Amino acid sequence: MEALKRKIVEEGVVLGNQVLKVDSFLNHRIDPVLMDGIGDVFARLFAEDGVTVVLTIESSGIAPAVMTALKLNVPLVFARKRKSLTLRDDLYTEKAYSFTKQEENEITVSKSYIGPGDRVLVVDDFLANGQASLALARIVEQAGARVAGIGIVIEKSFQSGRQALIEAGYRVESLARIASLEDGSIRFAE
Amino acid sequence: MEALKRKIVEEGVVLGNQVLKVDSFLNHRIDPVLMDGIGDVFARLFAEDGVTVVLTIESSGIAPAVMTALKLNVPLVFARKRKSLTLRDDLYTEKAYSFTKQEENEITVSKSYIGPGDRVLVVDDFLANGQASLALARIVEQAGARVAGIGIVIEKSFQSGRQALIEAGYRVESLARIASLEDGSIRFAE
Repeated sequence: MEALKRKIVEEGVVLGNQVLKVDSFLNHRIDPVLMDGIGDVFARLFAEDGVTVVLTIESSGIAPAVMTALKLNVPLVFARKRKSLTLRDDLYTEKAYSFTKQEENEITVSKSYIGPGDRVLVVDDFLANGQASLALARIVEQAGARVAGIGIVIEKSFQSGRQALIEAGYRVESLARIASLEDGSIRFAE
Repeated sequence: MEALKRKIVEEGVVLGNQVLKVDSFLNHRIDPVLMDGIGDVFARLFAEDGVTVVLTIESSGIAPAVMTALKLNVPLVFARKRKSLTLRDDLYTEKAYSFTKQEENEITVSKSYIGPGDRVLVVDDFLANGQASLALARIVEQAGARVAGIGIVIEKSFQSGRQALIEAGYRVESLARIASLEDGSIRFAE
């Protein structure tokens, strides 16, 4: 997605060889026109997949995901992140380790909002090691629903997440794929 | 806003005399068409106020706020909530006590994204005691910017938040005002 790549080049801040900060348009300040365009692209990519619900995780996933859900005319569910939780019968719960924050979160979704028969499009802002997306996909499976696909705004293709999702059998569509952040410069894949 | 009130009546769950759960369309599952409509209404209400940025707080404020920002054609900034934080020079920080969760959060906004000259529309999902909205407004003041107004999706008018915001000098526009939740039934103001 060209508008997204341009934004990444103009405003992305590279920290070390691994971290890309995009706080100016995605992770803290949000460019709503860009989010609207992201929604259009995901809705087009998954138009034929019978999506019945979009699933994301708080907080940075919500803006691109709500635009996608609007264009697909389906509800959005956002999973909640918690440090740790007492198990509750009414929640699907999965663990996701965050390498960035070096902590394990439990992510939860109410059993009321995803069930058998649903075809779920998982949307997330970043794909690095794939822990968050895999946890969301496992929640979909727990619910007896199907993962229609995984839509990622920014993929760090030099990390293992894409491979892990593909090996787990999921279709992954990333709007910007970053091959390398070495020497402080952003190089896109393909 | 009639569509919102209808949704509250149809899907809201009253717990005790104080708590209204709207997890089915606002706080966990999100109805994107309703959010789109909410964005339209806030954008109309504040169309003449020279808004330069919309400010909300993670996570439930993001969906209505990003739609509002899109319609106003300005960026959205979402404040982050933290249990406690070491003070950092590059962040505005304010405390907000949550009566619902009985915990104090620090809420933070990067100094990069709000500054003097900004006219900030604060948007939040709920207004109860006004702690979150007041903390956001104080961050706007810290930045030397002006609060253009405060847009609330659901106001619990029987709690003190509206009064506190009005007394602090802010214009408050709430799309649904709930006068009472007594006896398990939802009564709207006016």
